[in-house]
Amino acid sequence: MRLSKESPLVGVLGGMGPAATVDFYSKLIAATPASADQDHLRVMIWADPSVPDRSAAITGTGDDPTDSLAFGAQRLKDAGAAFYVVACNGAHAFLPEVKRRVDLEYLSMIDVTSDYIASLPYVSSAGLLATDATLAAGLYQRTFARAGVSPVVPQPVDQHTVMEIIYAVKAGTVTASQKDALVQVAESLVEDGADVIVAACTEIPLALSAESSPRPLIDPSLILANQVVQKASAISLEGT
Amino acid sequence: MRLSKESPLVGVLGGMGPAATVDFYSKLIAATPASADQDHLRVMIWADPSVPDRSAAITGTGDDPTDSLAFGAQRLKDAGAAFYVVACNGAHAFLPEVKRRVDLEYLSMIDVTSDYIASLPYVSSAGLLATDATLAAGLYQRTFARAGVSPVVPQPVDQHTVMEIIYAVKAGTVTASQKDALVQVAESLVEDGADVIVAACTEIPLALSAESSPRPLIDPSLILANQVVQKASAISLEGT
Repeated sequence: MRLSKESPLVGVLGGMGPAATVDFYSKLIAATPASADQDHLRVMIWADPSVPDRSAAITGTGDDPTDSLAFGAQRLKDAGAAFYVVACNGAHAFLPEVKRRVDLEYLSMIDVTSDYIASLPYVSSAGLLATDATLAAGLYQRTFARAGVSPVVPQPVDQHTVMEIIYAVKAGTVTASQKDALVQVAESLVEDGADVIVAACTEIPLALSAESSPRPLIDPSLILANQVVQKASAISLEGT
Repeated sequence: MRLSKESPLVGVLGGMGPAATVDFYSKLIAATPASADQDHLRVMIWADPSVPDRSAAITGTGDDPTDSLAFGAQRLKDAGAAFYVVACNGAHAFLPEVKRRVDLEYLSMIDVTSDYIASLPYVSSAGLLATDATLAAGLYQRTFARAGVSPVVPQPVDQHTVMEIIYAVKAGTVTASQKDALVQVAESLVEDGADVIVAACTEIPLALSAESSPRPLIDPSLILANQVVQKASAISLEGT
């Protein structure tokens, strides 16, 4: 399959954090059926790590990132992106407002993950490893409810551990013992009924491997990468 | 050091290939003194894998990539990039013409590598692992000559091996035995007098590790990443 020549430009709002953006772009490349450079998707990545902290904004302790996100979305639109994705779960809380300001379609990582989980016959509840903010904003809980999936969230002390690890990944200082602690949190989610573990923050897959997860690890950035390839090839086919 | 708030936008022309672009962006993140997302550089990556093959163009068997490269450089300029870099050695053959068409400064991976090697007191000659095209265009040989460094290039049969491995990395099919073969080519360069091995194609570091190289492995994309951080912080300081 040769996608590139007539393929749409895929926009990526990233930098939140930068390592998660690298991880997402790697997954997008791996998800593309390609045997030469020219088979890959055309991608524009707007990586602005100076976007105010999404968690701080949602919990009311920091600046609103909407202006920064909309600025990036406008750059993607100006450059000709057909649609865009955001490699940060917490940022999704602000995307409906960004869409009102910048008329460019986005593919929601949370929606595609929820659809995927709802399609798994053995899953009735899903454990969430996410930032305080993603949980507080109810991003996954709301879409799960529509899909008939029960969310399982960590106990407060475990959630504190999750946040410490996410910021350690962003700082590039995550340790082996922190990775072990994350496995323990995942095990507690399983005890509380989780059939799968959702890496609902893009830093989580950088600290918790599929092999070490006590239940199937659902990686929203991987699901999003696959959906981007599908959507881009559907647009390519429309164009022919 | 907090760079981001007032830091310039760094442009990256990538996608040639995509995996090398991921590798360069990873190195740029690692080269940045940062303890939170907001300390990282603002980066725009224009990853267009549909740019015609640089090797084929230089050797006269393929389309000229200058239009595609200039199109990307214009997008970077339009979005506000202060300068840009290109994560592909072969593409550097076309950058002087791109600069004539799009007035945006670029930092040459080949110049920064040559300056770095010239600064190493123990190096009088450097082995080149590069595409046929990068060698045919004399990109490294010319800058090395100005810096007083003798280039050592592979024998024709070895160069054929190098090309096969580069295209295998691009196709995602590189094997362990190909990696071993690349070590053998590097050893032949050392026999022919190379004091260091230059990974003069951005796919090479994905197939030859510093540990397996028989002499210090000089990675131009790593040197470029460090120089980008230095240049961006110099621009930030000018602005204060």
